Amino acid sequence: MPSATIIAVGTELLFGQVVNTNAAYLSRHLRDLGVSVPYHHVVGDNPGRFRALLDEALAQTDIVITTGGLGPTQDDLTKEIIAEAFGAPLEYDDEAKQRLDEIMRGFGAKNYTENNLKQAKLPASATIFYNDAGTAPGFAIEKDGKVAIALPGPPREMKAMWQKGALPYLAKLADAVIYSKILRFYGIGESALETALLPIIDGQTDPTVATYAKEGECAVRIASMRKTQPEAEAAVAAAARRAKELAGQHLYSEDDKDYPEVVVDLLRAKGLRLAAAESCTGGLFAGAITSVPGSSDVFDRSFVTYSNKSKLDLLRVSPETLAREGAVSEQCAREMAAGALAHSDADIAVSVTGIAGPTGATCDKPVGTVHFAIATKDGVEAYERHFRDRGRQVNRSVCVLELCDIIRKKLLL
Amino acid sequence: MPSATIIAVGTELLFGQVVNTNAAYLSRHLRDLGVSVPYHHVVGDNPGRFRALLDEALAQTDIVITTGGLGPTQDDLTKEIIAEAFGAPLEYDDEAKQRLDEIMRGFGAKNYTENNLKQAKLPASATIFYNDAGTAPGFAIEKDGKVAIALPGPPREMKAMWQKGALPYLAKLADAVIYSKILRFYGIGESALETALLPIIDGQTDPTVATYAKEGECAVRIASMRKTQPEAEAAVAAAARRAKELAGQHLYSEDDKDYPEVVVDLLRAKGLRLAAAESCTGGLFAGAITSVPGSSDVFDRSFVTYSNKSKLDLLRVSPETLAREGAVSEQCAREMAAGALAHSDADIAVSVTGIAGPTGATCDKPVGTVHFAIATKDGVEAYERHFRDRGRQVNRSVCVLELCDIIRKKLLL
Repeated sequence: MPSATIIAVGTELLFGQVVNTNAAYLSRHLRDLGVSVPYHHVVGDNPGRFRALLDEALAQTDIVITTGGLGPTQDDLTKEIIAEAFGAPLEYDDEAKQRLDEIMRGFGAKNYTENNLKQAKLPASATIFYNDAGTAPGFAIEKDGKVAIALPGPPREMKAMWQKGALPYLAKLADAVIYSKILRFYGIGESALETALLPIIDGQTDPTVATYAKEGECAVRIASMRKTQPEAEAAVAAAARRAKELAGQHLYSEDDKDYPEVVVDLLRAKGLRLAAAESCTGGLFAGAITSVPGSSDVFDRSFVTYSNKSKLDLLRVSPETLAREGAVSEQCAREMAAGALAHSDADIAVSVTGIAGPTGATCDKPVGTVHFAIATKDGVEAYERHFRDRGRQVNRSVCVLELCDIIRKKLLL
Repeated sequence: MPSATIIAVGTELLFGQVVNTNAAYLSRHLRDLGVSVPYHHVVGDNPGRFRALLDEALAQTDIVITTGGLGPTQDDLTKEIIAEAFGAPLEYDDEAKQRLDEIMRGFGAKNYTENNLKQAKLPASATIFYNDAGTAPGFAIEKDGKVAIALPGPPREMKAMWQKGALPYLAKLADAVIYSKILRFYGIGESALETALLPIIDGQTDPTVATYAKEGECAVRIASMRKTQPEAEAAVAAAARRAKELAGQHLYSEDDKDYPEVVVDLLRAKGLRLAAAESCTGGLFAGAITSVPGSSDVFDRSFVTYSNKSKLDLLRVSPETLAREGAVSEQCAREMAAGALAHSDADIAVSVTGIAGPTGATCDKPVGTVHFAIATKDGVEAYERHFRDRGRQVNRSVCVLELCDIIRKKLLL
């Protein structure tokens, strides 16, 4: 199994101004390639320290991937030091220079500074990765069976260059292609999901199947490295089919979509419009649905009825319900959903009312008690849930996912 | 200047399942102590590799701080290896054992396993940090002028133990105390803020003043290390006063509160209730305000009027306004705010309507065009903003901050 060290270069990381998310991203993707990662390092813009770490990493592992330090300033030394370590002189690269010309013209700059031009100098014999999302190019260089790959620091640039340049480069070195997909699950914990998927996790080397816990939900990443794209895709598809057999009742997306996006897609496919009446989520459900570009096709309105008075005014919840059952009750949820449907242009309306904490709990309604309802022209259905208290913000986020789940299941009936 | 290396121990970090946020947190706090951090490392649950990194780090820097690997399983080896490196035998610690007893009883466990008990064994001569947020204790150990500090991996436990145990320990080593505070700014970019604050940044060694860019806003961290608490507090207070003189018009919190919390506090202090009418933010403003515990004291309702029809129905925006000016217009924002005030129990109502992108832009209304209004019994004021397009999600988050800013400025008049 080949191995890789990830070295992030940047004083801003050592000052704690930026969190090193790049290392986690690269580690996940290196796993797909069957590459083990025994070390992450972070070092500042210090040539001596970086060179020492680089030499050590090249001695310990087959591949070294660096992020950061490719920019135009004097501090940016990653390229120079890797070139030195690999004994490769820096030379102007025509395409890099031309791209830089275009970017500089776009900024209205008439003359280069020496620093700007520095970005067009790259190690001779390196494979260049041009930067579609920024200015600094990256590269890969090989010598004596060791590989160094230099990527930019900003995550958006790094990811784009990894996908387009570095990943295909490493796959080609292994004479293989990589294909991966991410499945999203709701309503099952990570360890239960892992147990359910054991038949495709245990003892499998390709495709690899890894679970990740997210807030209130889980993701499963399936990746295959094969000789050809169709083989890799077929291996991933077969594992995805098995995953669906094993835990399909909790699967909501086969292509890494967020739950609100899945809901918007389903509503659009069915030609239906949605409204909401929110109490404990306080607008977060509407905020999540409208985070999806084009959601105006399917989303009509939300009544964020935080006060009891607003539930009476806008949704016509009955004063008797509030007095007798309280705002956090099945009856109130039902009347909220029915009211939202009646006072909107929607075909489906959902409601949520619950105790998000830390205050507001009573003996019979602890934090995590939440009532949901969904109303259509055929009637109203209610759901009572007792979530584990994970703090106000997570409790509210879980309510948003639960609303998505209720809508998806209703639409798939 | 003393120096420290931060080593995170955990295979989950090398698999990319968890991002190493601990290193950034510790780095920020070590800076307050005047400790430089030349390296962060991540290594798996591998005794040989961890020991080699630890020895190297102890040779290179004065202090080594580890996170993770303190748990009850066989994999958790941080404590054993540090004890070995410092030549300190592991011994049962009475208080650690007693705390473990209580936790185990709480779980209803009758018998310990050998693994559970392992957590109560700690290096002889170490200063023990008991864990108030979890089970595994941490510790600090000194030898030959070198210090190792072992903290747990989960960020919540790590931060609690840092604040209560490790930070005071290191401050005491330096015969000093630390005091810090964070100021929050809106409406000024990080580099402009840094320029404005140069008089208290440049050439200052104590208190240290560092700026951090957050999404759409900035934070400034001021920290002082002095012989006594009053001296440190006075130094920070003096720098905070200067910061206020230099950039006070953009300062919204002197104690690291989020903007919605500042708004809720102000409304509560003035005995006023708030309502909102949201279009492009789609409920995120109400979601942000209601993220503050106890916001029900001051928040009445929000009308998430995403469709034009909902603006007519719920806010009585005039059809002529929508036809002539469009939904993204000053007039529409004014009518939305006035409508929210009229159809709620609030004393103040705000509105927002704009182009969040990526779709919906026109020639004269590019992405980032947003109209805001605020209505009180004294009338309606409108604000037009042209934000730089930073993608749909950030554009919407900035609108939420801008609404908070408009409300705060109105309340402070």
